[in-house]
Amino acid sequence: MKAKNPSESLTIMTELVLPNDTNNLNNLFGGQLLSWMDRCAAISAHRHSSRQVVTAAVNNVSFAQPIAQASIVTLEATVSRAFNSSIEVFVDVFIEDNRGGRKRTKTNEAIYTFVAVDQLGNPIQIAPVEPETDLEKKRHEGALRRKQLSLILSGKMKPEDAHELKALFFPEEKL
Amino acid sequence: MKAKNPSESLTIMTELVLPNDTNNLNNLFGGQLLSWMDRCAAISAHRHSSRQVVTAAVNNVSFAQPIAQASIVTLEATVSRAFNSSIEVFVDVFIEDNRGGRKRTKTNEAIYTFVAVDQLGNPIQIAPVEPETDLEKKRHEGALRRKQLSLILSGKMKPEDAHELKALFFPEEKL
Amino acid sequence: MKAKNPSESLTIMTELVLPNDTNNLNNLFGGQLLSWMDRCAAISAHRHSSRQVVTAAVNNVSFAQPIAQASIVTLEATVSRAFNSSIEVFVDVFIEDNRGGRKRTKTNEAIYTFVAVDQLGNPIQIAPVEPETDLEKKRHEGALRRKQLSLILSGKMKPEDAHELKALFFPEEKL
Amino acid sequence: MKAKNPSESLTIMTELVLPNDTNNLNNLFGGQLLSWMDRCAAISAHRHSSRQVVTAAVNNVSFAQPIAQASIVTLEATVSRAFNSSIEVFVDVFIEDNRGGRKRTKTNEAIYTFVAVDQLGNPIQIAPVEPETDLEKKRHEGALRRKQLSLILSGKMKPEDAHELKALFFPEEKL
Amino acid sequence: MKAKNPSESLTIMTELVLPNDTNNLNNLFGGQLLSWMDRCAAISAHRHSSRQVVTAAVNNVSFAQPIAQASIVTLEATVSRAFNSSIEVFVDVFIEDNRGGRKRTKTNEAIYTFVAVDQLGNPIQIAPVEPETDLEKKRHEGALRRKQLSLILSGKMKPEDAHELKALFFPEEKL
Amino acid sequence: MKAKNPSESLTIMTELVLPNDTNNLNNLFGGQLLSWMDRCAAISAHRHSSRQVVTAAVNNVSFAQPIAQASIVTLEATVSRAFNSSIEVFVDVFIEDNRGGRKRTKTNEAIYTFVAVDQLGNPIQIAPVEPETDLEKKRHEGALRRKQLSLILSGKMKPEDAHELKALFFPEEKL
Repeated sequence: MKAKNPSESLTIMTELVLPNDTNNLNNLFGGQLLSWMDRCAAISAHRHSSRQVVTAAVNNVSFAQPIAQASIVTLEATVSRAFNSSIEVFVDVFIEDNRGGRKRTKTNEAIYTFVAVDQLGNPIQIAPVEPETDLEKKRHEGALRRKQLSLILSGKMKPEDAHELKALFFPEEKL
Repeated sequence: MKAKNPSESLTIMTELVLPNDTNNLNNLFGGQLLSWMDRCAAISAHRHSSRQVVTAAVNNVSFAQPIAQASIVTLEATVSRAFNSSIEVFVDVFIEDNRGGRKRTKTNEAIYTFVAVDQLGNPIQIAPVEPETDLEKKRHEGALRRKQLSLILSGKMKPEDAHELKALFFPEEKL
Repeated sequence: MKAKNPSESLTIMTELVLPNDTNNLNNLFGGQLLSWMDRCAAISAHRHSSRQVVTAAVNNVSFAQPIAQASIVTLEATVSRAFNSSIEVFVDVFIEDNRGGRKRTKTNEAIYTFVAVDQLGNPIQIAPVEPETDLEKKRHEGALRRKQLSLILSGKMKPEDAHELKALFFPEEKL
Repeated sequence: MKAKNPSESLTIMTELVLPNDTNNLNNLFGGQLLSWMDRCAAISAHRHSSRQVVTAAVNNVSFAQPIAQASIVTLEATVSRAFNSSIEVFVDVFIEDNRGGRKRTKTNEAIYTFVAVDQLGNPIQIAPVEPETDLEKKRHEGALRRKQLSLILSGKMKPEDAHELKALFFPEEKL
Repeated sequence: MKAKNPSESLTIMTELVLPNDTNNLNNLFGGQLLSWMDRCAAISAHRHSSRQVVTAAVNNVSFAQPIAQASIVTLEATVSRAFNSSIEVFVDVFIEDNRGGRKRTKTNEAIYTFVAVDQLGNPIQIAPVEPETDLEKKRHEGALRRKQLSLILSGKMKPEDAHELKALFFPEEKL
Repeated sequence: MKAKNPSESLTIMTELVLPNDTNNLNNLFGGQLLSWMDRCAAISAHRHSSRQVVTAAVNNVSFAQPIAQASIVTLEATVSRAFNSSIEVFVDVFIEDNRGGRKRTKTNEAIYTFVAVDQLGNPIQIAPVEPETDLEKKRHEGALRRKQLSLILSGKMKPEDAHELKALFFPEEKL
């Protein structure tokens, strides 16, 4: 199957934070942001695979700062790596300077994993990802370590076999 | 005030049509699409003006074909022209070929008008629009005719003074 | 097919503006109002045609003044004219004086067009509209000009053939 | 304070049952209908009192038959009686015959009680209700029995003092 | 059919009052609470019957005090009695002291009635309820009086045959 | 500050999967579940801290199997550990056997981190967690490793200083 570049699955979603979306501190409600990120990431995974996809895991979502009511929020999702039928997607979230200018501030980052399924809901093989930019390459590499960590935590891999992950702790050793 | 290009206010919104968004024919509910278009256009008007904006009119929304459940819908809004405090925004709506490939089909077009307001809700002067591409220029010109039509319909302009609009009917005449 | 009066399709919808429905100025969010108007107009078109209807166009929506949170909003939709399978519907929007009394203020007017479809989604012929009151007659007549304008804008009619529309600009001429 | 007729507080709400509103049998979800009835009744109580109102009790809601998806639902609320600051409102719910004709079927009836409050949230005296039609008179009378029943159930009245209510069981006796 | 205890159908629902859920006094919107109670009660009725259930009536909902935005609301539903295919469910609603401690205040009580249906939507016989605690016994007994009152109000029972209900008014008599 | 047991912050949320909540495969939409989990976890963190809390991170959410429409979903959240102002919460998600019986199947597990803030939004010290059951102790211990991993990934700790985390890979060594 022919590899695809992350830019082919780039998905942009722009939202305005209305009263309907806020928590009791007048900031964007965390649950609403998680829901937007899931939908944005799912579209990106679908664009990469041309298949129906289902959420398999949310690996890391960081909330650097609260997002105030009336903010314009931009979500950008790109596929970082594919393993057989599973697809890892990064979502970056930004807010804009409302006073003019187009400077934007990154407020959140999330990593979602989807599985591509066929008509009957069975996992199906999809195209690999070929990263181009430095950031894409870094995320593509990191995906392997995250996969190992996930396998260890679920008891499907022994820690001593997770070579890439161990290298994170003992980079100087030959593993 | 320094003019801005339409590309500076381009706003992209990507949505997935979930059961929650459908009408009783399993297509995207018209009211939901109108709401998405309003939000997308409002963000574009805000990006142009760096001001709070309120919807003043929806001039034309066409629905070329129904949008089926599970479609990926992309809305693209750009400012076409500004008149003092009012801002005309075009929204183009596309669906993607779900089977792979990135061919997309235009399903809707809409023209929204917003007014930029200050803290007290009073209209406020904003920067003009400087179109660059052919499509931007065509929409920029058309905005004047639409403005005249709107003024005639609300009784604020006499039909005989609407020179650009009359030229549409009698292009050969010297008006 | 027997003609019907506009009063037979009159549809009244009353809504209370809750925090859930507001924009960031504490007024009714434009997208929410567009969605309510679409639903109200669709019910009216359905009552006229006794058929499933789909939104075909939103021709003009004006927003005369903002609608504050806690307002009671009344929408009234009536069919103005039918052309074969297409149905034009007017929606008038009012708010009430909250301090007592039943005086109401018109805040919005919108014109929606629907197409009546059969089980397979194909357009289907429906009954004509027979206006009774002066307002109904004025809107019934205007529908023809709006239809011509719409056909011209979509390139389906030559401007010189739009007799009724041209009469708007040159009422004294024999066209 | 001058009495008002129930017709002055008549509130009509028309809704279309979309997929968004259904339960897992493809009928209107009971909770959604309860929410619509509450909003419709609250507007009616507000129209009678010209005051902010809060829900105090839902006395009886009957569900005669399920309401299928795609139904057009009409809610009609009218004030039946006022006691000092409390207002009893009846809501009648109807569905239409979708095949044409305007015959409608009553599917639900509900009785809501509201309290009118001032700016500080304290109960405030409001105008009495003067019923006109037979149905309005019947509901106005019944309100007294329902009030007694409510007082007995909450321990605020002794059963033997509820003369009107007792008459329901021993109509022939002199009470 | 083997009787079940009310504790087997206990259903707990915890909600946080977000801006999205409020009325124009910044308290929980009554319609939203009614919708939550309906869902909580329906799950309880389902747990008792292991059948699809539909709302048949809402008999009494009291609102003792408003629930402020940001409150944590706990709903607890338990089946009080079953009559053939109908199931009566009590819902008790509590708010917590936000300052720490776990003291909670009861704000609402509601009685819902459901009917258990088979695949075709026909009523189906279900297991009886065997109350254990004093409160469960009291509610189980009261269910009979409420059933009689409901039958009288709908004209399906003569008042003089409602022995348990009459005893409420003349407890000293031999009926 | 006096330590609290995890059972003191146990939060139970029961939901019924309505059409409104589904994705295009008729299963619970992932974004909706993430939103429910966030709300359930936030209430648990609030119950532990008696403070306003904001979402800081979602560390791991696994989706073992899809949750079908009409399922009854129970979410149970408990605080696993507190570090100064940050609180780690586990959410376990179960579905019930709809055919009767109370057997339930675990479908999801998630770890959320919140920060407790004061009136001005500044982080504030909260009580420690004292685990009691075996599962609570295991999760309490794991929290330290997850904290180290989080600090490493954000560049705030050197991998060689993460003793507990390293022990995961080299359990036999003295670290």
